[in-house]
Amino acid sequence: MGYRILETADIPAYLRERGHWDGSDDIGVREVSDGNLNRVFVASDSAGTRTLAVKQALPWVRVAGPSWPLSPDRSDAEARAYEQLARVAPGTIPAIHGYDPENHALVMEDLSDLRVLRTALNEGAAYGPDTSRRIGELVAQLSFATSDFGLDSAGRKALIAASANPELCKITEDVVLSEPYTEHEHNHWLPELDDLAAEFRADTRLRTEVADLRHTFMTGAQALLHGDLHTGSIMVGEREGAPVVRVFDPEFSFVGPIGFDLGLYWANALVSAERARALGTASDHADQLRVSWEAFENEFRRLWPTRVDTFFDDAYLDRFLRRVWTESLGFAGTELVRRIIGFAHLTDLTTLPNPAPASRRALLLGRELILHRTELTNARAVRSLAESLV
Amino acid sequence: MGYRILETADIPAYLRERGHWDGSDDIGVREVSDGNLNRVFVASDSAGTRTLAVKQALPWVRVAGPSWPLSPDRSDAEARAYEQLARVAPGTIPAIHGYDPENHALVMEDLSDLRVLRTALNEGAAYGPDTSRRIGELVAQLSFATSDFGLDSAGRKALIAASANPELCKITEDVVLSEPYTEHEHNHWLPELDDLAAEFRADTRLRTEVADLRHTFMTGAQALLHGDLHTGSIMVGEREGAPVVRVFDPEFSFVGPIGFDLGLYWANALVSAERARALGTASDHADQLRVSWEAFENEFRRLWPTRVDTFFDDAYLDRFLRRVWTESLGFAGTELVRRIIGFAHLTDLTTLPNPAPASRRALLLGRELILHRTELTNARAVRSLAESLV
Repeated sequence: MGYRILETADIPAYLRERGHWDGSDDIGVREVSDGNLNRVFVASDSAGTRTLAVKQALPWVRVAGPSWPLSPDRSDAEARAYEQLARVAPGTIPAIHGYDPENHALVMEDLSDLRVLRTALNEGAAYGPDTSRRIGELVAQLSFATSDFGLDSAGRKALIAASANPELCKITEDVVLSEPYTEHEHNHWLPELDDLAAEFRADTRLRTEVADLRHTFMTGAQALLHGDLHTGSIMVGEREGAPVVRVFDPEFSFVGPIGFDLGLYWANALVSAERARALGTASDHADQLRVSWEAFENEFRRLWPTRVDTFFDDAYLDRFLRRVWTESLGFAGTELVRRIIGFAHLTDLTTLPNPAPASRRALLLGRELILHRTELTNARAVRSLAESLV
Repeated sequence: MGYRILETADIPAYLRERGHWDGSDDIGVREVSDGNLNRVFVASDSAGTRTLAVKQALPWVRVAGPSWPLSPDRSDAEARAYEQLARVAPGTIPAIHGYDPENHALVMEDLSDLRVLRTALNEGAAYGPDTSRRIGELVAQLSFATSDFGLDSAGRKALIAASANPELCKITEDVVLSEPYTEHEHNHWLPELDDLAAEFRADTRLRTEVADLRHTFMTGAQALLHGDLHTGSIMVGEREGAPVVRVFDPEFSFVGPIGFDLGLYWANALVSAERARALGTASDHADQLRVSWEAFENEFRRLWPTRVDTFFDDAYLDRFLRRVWTESLGFAGTELVRRIIGFAHLTDLTTLPNPAPASRRALLLGRELILHRTELTNARAVRSLAESLV
């Protein structure tokens, strides 16, 4: 057969062929593609009691079209990441019903009753007590299980080899970890930020620190990452009265530095806090770095006694967590910067009535986090820094 | 056919079958196995003008026998490493005539006219002006070419995946980077060192630093390494009046921290200097850390302008080299310690009339290098430290 691009009309037959739907004709399909890269369809019966989602990787970047080709093999990375996540945090990802590597398609739980966290926040929702805690726990669970603490030496080497994700890593290396500090056609920014964009490109100290983080991203094979853990990769809502958090879209997954996942989440939380501040809304956003870090640290420490390699002692755990903290701050800084003067910006800021002041603050905060990550030793210090910016 | 263990009598037919030797019956074979793991045969004609070596990996550790099984797949790692080395430093490795993955056998240049560096040093030879320079250059050439500076992002990911070497990495993780700091049946030492061996096992600060180096070894995917670069993996001699240096046995090769290769070489050079000192021999041994580092640094800096990724600027190079230096010192420390209170000891010390004083000094030096690697910022400081030990 070979790979074929699925259209809305193909989905009923596709689901039946793959054994995900019985012979019934009661099946309606709509396309709900929302991310930058892939297509997503939702199939449901007329009563809405049976629903399934189908996600297919296209051989190009969906929003750019065939002029930006991208191997659909990224769906393999996504399926592998879901497999690992299902072992350690099944309650925090969508249920996966099947993966079809030939068509680069995942059949999974329909999450359309939930909302993308970023959208909810933009509309004024709070994080609430669960979201950042669940995210911190998930990062701890995934990273512990796939680190040298959770996996034996041979299993680790096999995981690293199997999880290579060169094309998507290259996107991050370029778009997040270098372009914003150089002249590049991808970059754009508000005219009010011309001064800072120029300053950042000329700042050799900043560039060396970013180069250091970039090389850590390229060589620091600590654990399997989600790889793109921003507030647009998280769904939130309620089911049967209980809060629900689901992390999705792990197609950037690879074995890298744990701080990259935490840092992306932190940067997006800090941006959401800037939005609330700009709008004068009372919010819990500025506290989310602390909440997610504490949840991460507590869960990692809870798992520590189960480590497979007891040569790593408690004193080493302290040092290791300190390093993860510091690198997380640095990666958070790079994510802040690239979301304001790089290629892909955030609706948190772009939909503000006057986006420049909040964007400027976020940009300055990003630089501080990169340059001073080793001196900022706790969440309170980061919060004070954010509040001190003018 | 499948894998078969080659005996001396099999070699002539084997070489003819594989096209390495014509039909002539003028072929004599002797076994010259010397390392811990493999078998080596040398075939030559009666005039001694045609010679070839055959190295075969056995499914166990040669010196231990079948009770210590070890996958012969390590020969794949060795062949891959030779392939990379042949691209960047063809003059510093044996010529490889063929690799037979089915039988885990390499057919290569016969080096039996040269001497193992350790043996030569033990018998009173000097390093001379070439050896450590060539070693430093080779480490720079191999590591630059296989780092993110010399290889594009996708090529790097493929190399990391292809170069996984779980069984041999595990040996290093155990024998070098943990056992000597714990109670383990592998460990042994001179009775005069009972006090230090006990002290090392009880030293929590030392253990945390070793854990840090060990985790760097496991996760720091900087470049392809030789993986076992001690003075027993180097042949030296003269051919046609010119000095010859050949690095061999790269079966421990994998993508790891560059400092591990330098550190192993340094530790072995420092041990050779302790031997010379104990014997009261004038020697150039204490200068080899400096010579090899300078050659490494000069060659790496010479290659830097050819890097494929110019986001990494000169200021980052300085920082990166500083980090390689520091990690090299740490790994040198672990190699010193394990060679004195761990599993496999060195003839440099064991063949001394009174091995205890030199062994004690080397052991103390190892601890200092591990604990104070960030403060020892140049070769002179290391030399002063070595000279100050009592």
